[in-house]
Amino acid sequence: MKQPPFYQKAIMPEWLSQRALLTPDRLALVCGQTRVCFAELECLARLTAKRLFDLGVRAGQRVALLSGNSLEFVLAVHALPKLGGILVPLNTRLAEQELAWQLADAGASLLLHDEPNADRALLLARKNTQVRAVSIKELPLPLGPAKAAERSAIRLSRVHSILYTSGTTGTPKGAMLTYGNHFFSATGSALNLGVMKEDCWLTSLPLYHVGGLSILLRSVIYGIPAIVHNGFDPEAINRAIDEDGVSMLSVVAVMLTRILDARGHRPFPGSLRCVLVGGGPVPLSLLEDAERLGAPVVQTYGLTEAASQVATLSKEDAPRKQGSAGKPLFPTEVSIVDTCGRVLGPEQAGEILVRSPVVMAGYFGRPKETAEVLRGGWLHTGDVGSLDEEGYLYVSDRRCDLIVSGGENIYPAEVEAALLSHPYVLEAGVIGVPDARWGQAVAAFLLLREGKKIDEGHVKAFLKERLAGYKVPAHVRFVDSLPRNASGKLLRHRLREAWL
Amino acid sequence: MKQPPFYQKAIMPEWLSQRALLTPDRLALVCGQTRVCFAELECLARLTAKRLFDLGVRAGQRVALLSGNSLEFVLAVHALPKLGGILVPLNTRLAEQELAWQLADAGASLLLHDEPNADRALLLARKNTQVRAVSIKELPLPLGPAKAAERSAIRLSRVHSILYTSGTTGTPKGAMLTYGNHFFSATGSALNLGVMKEDCWLTSLPLYHVGGLSILLRSVIYGIPAIVHNGFDPEAINRAIDEDGVSMLSVVAVMLTRILDARGHRPFPGSLRCVLVGGGPVPLSLLEDAERLGAPVVQTYGLTEAASQVATLSKEDAPRKQGSAGKPLFPTEVSIVDTCGRVLGPEQAGEILVRSPVVMAGYFGRPKETAEVLRGGWLHTGDVGSLDEEGYLYVSDRRCDLIVSGGENIYPAEVEAALLSHPYVLEAGVIGVPDARWGQAVAAFLLLREGKKIDEGHVKAFLKERLAGYKVPAHVRFVDSLPRNASGKLLRHRLREAWL
Repeated sequence: MKQPPFYQKAIMPEWLSQRALLTPDRLALVCGQTRVCFAELECLARLTAKRLFDLGVRAGQRVALLSGNSLEFVLAVHALPKLGGILVPLNTRLAEQELAWQLADAGASLLLHDEPNADRALLLARKNTQVRAVSIKELPLPLGPAKAAERSAIRLSRVHSILYTSGTTGTPKGAMLTYGNHFFSATGSALNLGVMKEDCWLTSLPLYHVGGLSILLRSVIYGIPAIVHNGFDPEAINRAIDEDGVSMLSVVAVMLTRILDARGHRPFPGSLRCVLVGGGPVPLSLLEDAERLGAPVVQTYGLTEAASQVATLSKEDAPRKQGSAGKPLFPTEVSIVDTCGRVLGPEQAGEILVRSPVVMAGYFGRPKETAEVLRGGWLHTGDVGSLDEEGYLYVSDRRCDLIVSGGENIYPAEVEAALLSHPYVLEAGVIGVPDARWGQAVAAFLLLREGKKIDEGHVKAFLKERLAGYKVPAHVRFVDSLPRNASGKLLRHRLREAWL
Repeated sequence: MKQPPFYQKAIMPEWLSQRALLTPDRLALVCGQTRVCFAELECLARLTAKRLFDLGVRAGQRVALLSGNSLEFVLAVHALPKLGGILVPLNTRLAEQELAWQLADAGASLLLHDEPNADRALLLARKNTQVRAVSIKELPLPLGPAKAAERSAIRLSRVHSILYTSGTTGTPKGAMLTYGNHFFSATGSALNLGVMKEDCWLTSLPLYHVGGLSILLRSVIYGIPAIVHNGFDPEAINRAIDEDGVSMLSVVAVMLTRILDARGHRPFPGSLRCVLVGGGPVPLSLLEDAERLGAPVVQTYGLTEAASQVATLSKEDAPRKQGSAGKPLFPTEVSIVDTCGRVLGPEQAGEILVRSPVVMAGYFGRPKETAEVLRGGWLHTGDVGSLDEEGYLYVSDRRCDLIVSGGENIYPAEVEAALLSHPYVLEAGVIGVPDARWGQAVAAFLLLREGKKIDEGHVKAFLKERLAGYKVPAHVRFVDSLPRNASGKLLRHRLREAWL
């Protein structure tokens, strides 16, 4: 049979306006001292959209955001779809050089910033004449009578946001996530974890990460409140769980440890029905501690390129499937292939491939890199893993020696490139090493040029100017040679063995 | 910004195989004496797919189904997507002529039937050489070693099923519902009513209706059991609610009345969290009776062309919004327009338009009719209604004088056409009139030819050969003239006034 005559364009109402129509009085957001229902949030987001329109934001434009978690951050996220603008949230922990690069790469015309980032934002705008820096605090105050041509509908194939993620080469790339990606992610998560109008989702993850951003979108799609903390405060999280009926909590393992530490022996209330832990497997002892206090831990394996969750491991399966990332979300398929692209059977390790409507539209402005990772309709994650007989996923190596420290992704190649920019450094090798607090820490191995000498403190200071603080190695070792294969490729696994 | 380089193709895993992978051991289906988990259902569906493959079913082929609710019906529904075959469920209450017409219109190559419909199916196959009749009982028994080329993925834009629905002209048209339509309908319903793994959905609605079929699909997408009754038995439904933990129940108003009657004063258990009532507003007295016994009634307005629910009215809103169909599902927009297509404001009555990813791909083989109802990206329902200030929908007239009797749709034009085929009938007018049991009953007004005489019994017998029993008028009146406007159009509202 031929394709249907009427092509399915997959339009739906703009999310927040629809949610405000459906459940205007439900609590939408708790952020600092602010508590607003969906009708109020919609009203504020429309004012914000009007202001952004005054500032020249039009459909397809990229608007960068450099800010901690705040009401204004949330308003920008919900205002941009009303104008067709594309959100580019920037990691506030990046160094100025990194930010400048991403701003230019995204072709952003506007840089919204909060107070703590004001100086940096103004500096960035001075160096990039395309970009105008505007304080996020001024956002919900429209300038004049200008009427924004608001969109009441969104198209699922359109780009909603561009989130930067580094890769094997160490060059960050902007993952374009569409409305469809976010919608299928939200509904896929709902089909897995359930959804009820009594739910309430707390995050202290940064909203510039897909893990934090996706919670704002789920809040609107589900009609449940998002509780947004700025920065991680275990006491405040425990208070919100006890007093505000938090049912869903998104954290990374290191945060869960500290929440449990702060809690002592006080059990969690029954209203807490899911603690979603990203950023690598949760150690058994931590799982047991959580279980003892009644915190139902769901582990998840996610990627920016897949709009957050790819697979999750339920509390019930956790003891039996230690170290597994669980099973894929309903609309998502996971496949394991060898280096020739052949599909591997159970228990065989290979590259993890993902096929799903949650997979990004591509990397912004990078058709070549996009074609490389989206071959044949599958996302090639670069991560290594296997499936067992029952279809549980085990991730053995994050992509290309990815280091995950306190939930932040660090790509060795990027740190190595920064090290090699020092005139005394001849060769550099970077790996992740076990760290009791952050899961992993960055360790650098350096081979210096003949007759040159620098110490650990100098190396760290040098890098701090160029890289986000969390990327700066905690450990620096000076060596006489680095392990390489015949063709000269650095063998990072040999460095890891040497560390142990 | 240009369209993303990688077009979002919206592929997802075939639903039942994915569900069997994710939650193999959860209860999937209770039907008669059969209780199967998702792994077993998948196994049976694969055997069924193999058998259908043996019978020549290939991608794009239409497979008609003439059967009451049964395990085999469910298996056919889940097997066809594995082959890319398209389901055409036929209304078993239709007369042979109607069935023959739909079979030919859909170009079905196979007609699966249950025992009670065996004779009719064989007759239909004898008269239509394109069609082969096969007993549905033989389905899960593969003939030989043939290996079906099973599909592990589905494309949301592809047609899943064709459901016939009559229209203004009285000619049935096959509404093509895509996988995307059904998926967005299932997730839209979940976002509205919530979804939990403890849920359990019962229906005694026929599976050939979108209201019944959609429950089978939700069961698989949500990972919850579908309890399927064949025929309406209020005692059996009450038993299932009390003993099987039914949380969701789909009925029409007349069925709810009988369930309450059979129940007496026994309250419903707390596990019953939603009684979804379709087919027109629920009378206040019935709402109150249900409320007293603790049955949370959610009223819904739905259309075959929109894959079932369009809007729902929650229990909380029901007293305040008597007669309303409630608010649209999350991905769905409702608009009211006048005859010139201008959008009307609150409280103004006009045609109800629907825009949503749940809207069908079109009518099978009817580009002209499709273009008429899917103008400008909106489904023109033909139903008349209004929105109030808060966005609640009120349906004042089902499309084109549609009669809804016991949950079945009856189009006056279709009954009139059958009446006019009688040689003695000069003019005919058909309307729905209030009926205590079925909501509405069919009433016919006949103007006979000069000097000819027939009685009510003869008229009914004549129609029974040509139409489904539920379409045959309960009341027949002989008149001297029918009310018409200047251009000769029948004024059915005048007939309704005359009836009162």
